[in-house]
Amino acid sequence: MQTDKVDTKRAVEELKELAELTGGKDDGGSRRVAWTDEWVKAREWLEGKLSEIENVEVERDEAGNLWATLRGASEKAVLLGGHIDSVPSGGWLDGCLNTVAAMESLRVFAKHDLPVTVRLVDWADEEGARFGRSLLGSSACANALDPEEVRGLTDKDGVSLPDALAEHGVELDRMNESHRRLENAAAYLELHIEQGPVLERMNLPLGVVLGTFGVERHVVKFTGQHAHSGSTPMDVRRDAFIAAARSAAAFRDDAAARDDVRATTGFVNVSPAIVTAFNGVCEMSLDQRALDADVLADMLRAAKENGDECAEEEDVAVEWEKVWEIEPRPFDEKLIELAEEAITEVAGTSHRLPSGPLHDAAEMAPLMPTVMLFVKSLRGLSHTKEEDTPEEDIEMSVEALHRLAEKAVGWVGKKV
Amino acid sequence: MQTDKVDTKRAVEELKELAELTGGKDDGGSRRVAWTDEWVKAREWLEGKLSEIENVEVERDEAGNLWATLRGASEKAVLLGGHIDSVPSGGWLDGCLNTVAAMESLRVFAKHDLPVTVRLVDWADEEGARFGRSLLGSSACANALDPEEVRGLTDKDGVSLPDALAEHGVELDRMNESHRRLENAAAYLELHIEQGPVLERMNLPLGVVLGTFGVERHVVKFTGQHAHSGSTPMDVRRDAFIAAARSAAAFRDDAAARDDVRATTGFVNVSPAIVTAFNGVCEMSLDQRALDADVLADMLRAAKENGDECAEEEDVAVEWEKVWEIEPRPFDEKLIELAEEAITEVAGTSHRLPSGPLHDAAEMAPLMPTVMLFVKSLRGLSHTKEEDTPEEDIEMSVEALHRLAEKAVGWVGKKV
Repeated sequence: MQTDKVDTKRAVEELKELAELTGGKDDGGSRRVAWTDEWVKAREWLEGKLSEIENVEVERDEAGNLWATLRGASEKAVLLGGHIDSVPSGGWLDGCLNTVAAMESLRVFAKHDLPVTVRLVDWADEEGARFGRSLLGSSACANALDPEEVRGLTDKDGVSLPDALAEHGVELDRMNESHRRLENAAAYLELHIEQGPVLERMNLPLGVVLGTFGVERHVVKFTGQHAHSGSTPMDVRRDAFIAAARSAAAFRDDAAARDDVRATTGFVNVSPAIVTAFNGVCEMSLDQRALDADVLADMLRAAKENGDECAEEEDVAVEWEKVWEIEPRPFDEKLIELAEEAITEVAGTSHRLPSGPLHDAAEMAPLMPTVMLFVKSLRGLSHTKEEDTPEEDIEMSVEALHRLAEKAVGWVGKKV
Repeated sequence: MQTDKVDTKRAVEELKELAELTGGKDDGGSRRVAWTDEWVKAREWLEGKLSEIENVEVERDEAGNLWATLRGASEKAVLLGGHIDSVPSGGWLDGCLNTVAAMESLRVFAKHDLPVTVRLVDWADEEGARFGRSLLGSSACANALDPEEVRGLTDKDGVSLPDALAEHGVELDRMNESHRRLENAAAYLELHIEQGPVLERMNLPLGVVLGTFGVERHVVKFTGQHAHSGSTPMDVRRDAFIAAARSAAAFRDDAAARDDVRATTGFVNVSPAIVTAFNGVCEMSLDQRALDADVLADMLRAAKENGDECAEEEDVAVEWEKVWEIEPRPFDEKLIELAEEAITEVAGTSHRLPSGPLHDAAEMAPLMPTVMLFVKSLRGLSHTKEEDTPEEDIEMSVEALHRLAEKAVGWVGKKV
């Protein structure tokens, strides 16, 4: 369906208004950590604005997610998702751009008769900044939150997650009941800043996201025997760091030779870590990502082979401990097409790219057709007050999201 | 000259006696840290035994070194060096084997008319365990101690080095006056445990030391730009750790391809050191050692080339900061020959090897003909209570030192 144009300038003004209220662009960065007073303040600001839109019903679900519903002829619904929560000292766009752009879209839809329902959802605690568990609200809504896994989490002051939730009217053991909100959900759309350098380097404002990467995360531990740097000849050493260093290079080389995947060595801990000895132990993290599950499995297999080979050549032992994994969440092909059309209409050129970071959309993708739009991030920065996107690109992203929403409403409407 | 045989069994008994008095083999390891009460106790034990040897004059010099002199026909002197101080929780042999073996030699020489003078020196503070400056007494005696470099040193309780010295009757600014003790010194001999695996792996009890390695010690810092492990494609990364890892492997490979040198990466610090980002900074230590100054210089040149190449390929910057260097201290060719004869007489086979660790002999080598003997270390261990050498090898080492001392006395005597 076709509707009026969204007021993209108002969206930028409202983002600035929010930044003034709870930090963001200046003033030390955003301060909208979920389950804190400033997050409550940001949501009251959002709720106030949503309530002003004619025919919109605003409510909270059992997981603390905020819903704004504009009923159409059918109960089948197109969902526009975002999150107003942020990391501490975060940027002015990560999460709230999605929410503000969706609100702008809702304002336009409110002036029209809709064939299907349109709903905005502001997910609670996407970042997991206070308790370390990201995608909290959206995973509960996906009926995928195991309360036992998070019950013991505490913040840095020792406050438990269940207590913090209760302060905000959320009962941990009932969070998954929010899943009934998805009963009629037919499509999920989300706009987000890229948080990477790809679009900026291609000089493009917008891209369509193919899905979120699957992740294999391991701690790889090499164990040899440390000894004195002067008295131990090279050919008798069992140097754990050299084995690790060669493996890290091999992990990187393997990923670089594949198409659009990632392999990252993050922390590196050696022991004894002194100038006068080579290292008997080296423990490092390996984070591998790919959009295709088979590719990801092959990357892990290759890495273990490379690690074993380096370990054997250096006469050290190697152990792999899996610390986290998530399967790839590819997005819907039809929605990817529609998103590409929307971007091309607004910006002339589109680009397809995977999402490295996870998003709430990853929780929705297994449940309904899902897609995301990315807008350029300057210097690939996010989770810092230096995070930024040119205002003209923000405006284009708000328009592209609305055009995609129009197309999705039409697509879902046809299926009703 | 030829003299009686030394009592090698008594030497072993005396080493055990010392270990019982101040720790060593059991009981948590040795506790003879220089400028502490237990070191004083160990020296009183040594001094008592030296004073019992006929015609031996015992005295302290301005640096706190303990001398025992047996005058011969000429004032030209053969020096037998050792150090009774240890690291905390150290082994039962490191340093004191030298002193006890030299005392045994002195006991035999005392029964003969000597063509030249023979002197035992127990160096003060070889280990630098309390204040971090090793070879303190011997470097002062070599007139090579710069008081300004050590005046500000403090121990972990905040006691300053000058105060600790004063408690033991040593005045920092006068320590180099001890240099006059070397006026007639004509040869310096030192026995030490190997502290490495070479002799054990060759199944040999004894080896002759060619000199102490020169050392080039640098901190190598790679600087790129960290970013998110998911959102940043492989081909745009500026990963400081990968540059460092590849360089560390190259430094090792270069050393392994040369003859009997060392290259060691010790500490490795990456930043931000988290699982979800590759690293923007990696700082690591490189310790290079060789017996030949030209080889050492060439190793450093090759390492800088390798580091530059890796840095360029990874699009990161690299900086080298020299933190320490010492030139190689090759020992005297004639004394190396005599040491080889002595070892061959005692053990049948000798082996020539460089010393990785420094020793007091390194301070003497520029001043007079110097050589060292190494006795096998089990598993290459030292600076731990697990440090050990089979008693039969200890006995052979005591005999070999005395035979070498005889030969040196004869050699110096001929030159008088």
